[in-house]
Amino acid sequence: MPDYKAPLRDMRFLIDHVFDFHGHYTGLGATEASPDMVNAILEEGARFCENVLSPLNRSGDEEGCHFDNGVVTTPKGFKQAFAQYVEGGWHGLAADPAYGGQGLPSSLGLVLSEMIGSSNTSWGMYPGLTHGAMSAIHTHGSQAQKDIYLTKLTAGQWTGTMCLTEAHCGTDLGIIKTRAVPQANGSYAVTGSKIFISAGEHDMSENIIHLVLAKLPDAPAGTKGISLFIVPKFLPDTGERNGVSCGSIEHKMGIKASATCVLNFDGAEGYLIGEANKGLNCMFTMMNHARLGTGMQGLCLGEASFQGAIKYANDRLQMRSLTGAKAPEKPADPIIVHPDVRRMLLTMKAFNEGNRALTYFTAQLLDTAHLGTEPAQRQEAEDLLAFLTPICKAFMTETGLEVTNHGMQVFGGHGFIREWGMEQLVRDCRIAPIYEGTNGIQALDLLGRKVLGSQGKLLRGFTRIVHRFCAANADHPQLKAQVAHLDELNQQWGDLTVKVGTAAMKNPDEVGAAALDYLMYSGYIILGYLWLRMALVAQVQIDSGSGDADYARGKLATCEFYFKRLLPRTAAHRAAVEAGSDCLMSLPAELFAL
Amino acid sequence: MPDYKAPLRDMRFLIDHVFDFHGHYTGLGATEASPDMVNAILEEGARFCENVLSPLNRSGDEEGCHFDNGVVTTPKGFKQAFAQYVEGGWHGLAADPAYGGQGLPSSLGLVLSEMIGSSNTSWGMYPGLTHGAMSAIHTHGSQAQKDIYLTKLTAGQWTGTMCLTEAHCGTDLGIIKTRAVPQANGSYAVTGSKIFISAGEHDMSENIIHLVLAKLPDAPAGTKGISLFIVPKFLPDTGERNGVSCGSIEHKMGIKASATCVLNFDGAEGYLIGEANKGLNCMFTMMNHARLGTGMQGLCLGEASFQGAIKYANDRLQMRSLTGAKAPEKPADPIIVHPDVRRMLLTMKAFNEGNRALTYFTAQLLDTAHLGTEPAQRQEAEDLLAFLTPICKAFMTETGLEVTNHGMQVFGGHGFIREWGMEQLVRDCRIAPIYEGTNGIQALDLLGRKVLGSQGKLLRGFTRIVHRFCAANADHPQLKAQVAHLDELNQQWGDLTVKVGTAAMKNPDEVGAAALDYLMYSGYIILGYLWLRMALVAQVQIDSGSGDADYARGKLATCEFYFKRLLPRTAAHRAAVEAGSDCLMSLPAELFAL
Repeated sequence: MPDYKAPLRDMRFLIDHVFDFHGHYTGLGATEASPDMVNAILEEGARFCENVLSPLNRSGDEEGCHFDNGVVTTPKGFKQAFAQYVEGGWHGLAADPAYGGQGLPSSLGLVLSEMIGSSNTSWGMYPGLTHGAMSAIHTHGSQAQKDIYLTKLTAGQWTGTMCLTEAHCGTDLGIIKTRAVPQANGSYAVTGSKIFISAGEHDMSENIIHLVLAKLPDAPAGTKGISLFIVPKFLPDTGERNGVSCGSIEHKMGIKASATCVLNFDGAEGYLIGEANKGLNCMFTMMNHARLGTGMQGLCLGEASFQGAIKYANDRLQMRSLTGAKAPEKPADPIIVHPDVRRMLLTMKAFNEGNRALTYFTAQLLDTAHLGTEPAQRQEAEDLLAFLTPICKAFMTETGLEVTNHGMQVFGGHGFIREWGMEQLVRDCRIAPIYEGTNGIQALDLLGRKVLGSQGKLLRGFTRIVHRFCAANADHPQLKAQVAHLDELNQQWGDLTVKVGTAAMKNPDEVGAAALDYLMYSGYIILGYLWLRMALVAQVQIDSGSGDADYARGKLATCEFYFKRLLPRTAAHRAAVEAGSDCLMSLPAELFAL
Repeated sequence: MPDYKAPLRDMRFLIDHVFDFHGHYTGLGATEASPDMVNAILEEGARFCENVLSPLNRSGDEEGCHFDNGVVTTPKGFKQAFAQYVEGGWHGLAADPAYGGQGLPSSLGLVLSEMIGSSNTSWGMYPGLTHGAMSAIHTHGSQAQKDIYLTKLTAGQWTGTMCLTEAHCGTDLGIIKTRAVPQANGSYAVTGSKIFISAGEHDMSENIIHLVLAKLPDAPAGTKGISLFIVPKFLPDTGERNGVSCGSIEHKMGIKASATCVLNFDGAEGYLIGEANKGLNCMFTMMNHARLGTGMQGLCLGEASFQGAIKYANDRLQMRSLTGAKAPEKPADPIIVHPDVRRMLLTMKAFNEGNRALTYFTAQLLDTAHLGTEPAQRQEAEDLLAFLTPICKAFMTETGLEVTNHGMQVFGGHGFIREWGMEQLVRDCRIAPIYEGTNGIQALDLLGRKVLGSQGKLLRGFTRIVHRFCAANADHPQLKAQVAHLDELNQQWGDLTVKVGTAAMKNPDEVGAAALDYLMYSGYIILGYLWLRMALVAQVQIDSGSGDADYARGKLATCEFYFKRLLPRTAAHRAAVEAGSDCLMSLPAELFAL
């Protein structure tokens, strides 16, 4: 496994120069997120992830979780690392001070999340799911529920889960079968079986608080009849074991150290959270955060893969450069001299750094949506978030998977061997395009619900930003050609959307037919915009002799690479969008395979 | 694991209608490959693979190979299956009758290989490597060597390996360290360590015959100083154990039931095969076959994945169609009603059937190159083979990996769970773009050695075929638009090649910079040609009421899908080719990561 080093230089380039986090926090009155605080989090967070989590990543994969008669044991060191994480104050970083958190902005939590995910994605699932549960209780719980649960969850004494999926339904939650029957004492008896419950059972905390979707006896059919319940493993008042047990854990392709549980609820005591039959809404309010977190897994694993690949490409000697020996004193040249190896490395670098910029851009919107002082400002941020979230989730996981595969390929045959750790990154990444709403579902959300559902308003909220940016930089001495390229694509994006929208009015299948390619098309344009924002800053640094000129050169070169070799993929996606639904729908299902 | 059913309908569509195998065999005088014989091989081969190999696929993955003090044990059932395979006469199907084979054309061996690879890729490695060794001995061995080794190898009593890679070199064989010192008795003492040796040690045969690349004491440096040696595990005359031992087996991402061995040669007795210092040439003469076989792994695993995905897409109920319920009597519609699921399924189908057509097209060339009666005919086939082989290897494995990933995605969360078998197909497929020459190396071989190295002659040999085809079908009532599209791309292909060739004359790095995208670009066009050939036949069947109209409809719909949604990817690859090498080479290696 490549040793992980947090990419602090790139993080600071974004935080200090591209996105001016200091100004952003000041504007939102989040003065506790001072530059010193940010710096301390970067440095200490890096130290914790590099020294504590990263060394447990490969052993966790080899060992996996153990299941024995309802008891789940996490790999060696996981429990201790969690204790250290809690002791270090990391767990409550962005949590509400009213319940013991430090109250720092969400964006700083995400900066830390990236380091955790790169160093040990499986381990990161345990606190990650807990944060999801905390967010649901914080937003929808009663004061009494917050007092009981949030305090313990924030302190890391307890952890949390989200229990949505059942064997017969994942996407289609309207058909869940888990039932909640009201009891005399005001609680509910929850009965049913949930699958794919990350962190559903483990040995890292004293108690596990399950947030469970279930139906009341008189609930309407479909998604409008789903309610959300808190079901603790141990009842908080008595300490008694509740009627929920882990039936088994899954054997998976990757994230093997993350316990993926079958949970059986057998008349378990549960407490309604939020309004009856509004459970899906409760879940959706925290989706933005969770989906951004899942999207980041593409970035996290991509970054880890790049760190392995760049080292190997500089170390591994194989063949001579086509333009003559570059290391004549050695038996062969390091493989980074070969253009095709550089193609893979630069693709990795361009996606990782672009996806990191997208993450930070979106994370600032999350802050503004929470902390913005003006309603209009909050609404604008919410709208942009609604638009960008499915793109972050799907585009960053698709490209993250591509990146981890390139990293493995750079290693040649050694990439396929577990010992080197590169194939684990591919396996760990492979779940990200699937869970937290498959990428196909994200694409429908983007095109159907967000873009067309708002009559294009949410798209225009973003294209306007790009348009203004292009107008402001149309005459940039070094970058004007790329600005013009982006401007053209930005206009084409709007036209393409109108075309799809018009077709969809006649035939709703046009949305599904176009969705995934539309999302990828959009993602490439958005990354183009972000790459140009980075390039502008880099050019200023070079011109002014400020900042790190070497680093800035890398940014400019990668931006050029992105525009020349990756952005043209929009052409293929556009053609697929324009192909329409007929070529997908005309063949009867029974003729697909004969 | 999805139950494998050999796709006999598609195989027969190609064999009987698109490629007229009967006429092809008759023309080559291979009359033993009669329609009855072909039919028997299809049906009995399918039975063997479905009933014997397929049931061992998942258990083999779970169990893996065991290593204990130099002894390798294959998973339960593997040895027995090999015995059945040999008894059934499958092993010697395409082998020389002079040594006990049945002498059927190579193309029939490949038809069988597909079924083996789809049902159990790991198992298929053992006979596959043996066929490679047989081919090397047949082409380059002395009569005595053939008499001793080929007879036992053909009979399946012994198996074979190819020992090329060492820890410090895979691609760059010029720097191998294994040494062969001449002995008084005419043999050589071979000393060195080889890694990644598939089937290097196992329990399936009485003896293992290693073909080993090593350097003679006075050998010139580099690839012109490599010789090839036969090194048996047990000496054939005395039965004594030779000085070669298995030091360990690798723990891999996939093909876990294929033993990947470290082999230590410690003064092992070896016998020179072919001329001294011409060992690499000996290896290269059998590369076409081996690389085609590796390319087929993309097809094989893609086919297995499609079979799983299509069944699941028809069974799994989730959400309603956007155009209204299609199965109102059920709680939800089968997911095949959703356009995005169909996008994945049709992508799988289009690549699998296109790649199968490419395999059969190339397999016929292999026959002609071996059996052609006229030297010019053989040369033409050799030229086309030289051109197509790297494309088969790289394009079919890249697209095969995409296909297996789609298949997993169709399953949603269940795709990530080992029990369903879909993730194994991704893991097993992931080695194919790496071994037998990475796809980057294939791309250099195609663009540098084959296309530019022949001043475009090898490319023109293929574009001429496409051009004639387009001219002949320019007025086709139903398909003329697609014919015109192909014709345009075919011309663009030539123009693009000239452009790259011109740039490469000034800067050799232009070849490496363009190579992989050039190969993929070429692959998409070639599959377009083959899809149109299939569509023409399908249209004839529908028009004439002959053949299977339902099957023909599927072909036409998939061809349309391919042209509308996959072929446009050529635009992105072309842009990447045209981007040139500067955006890859300008950044100094030390600035890639800071």
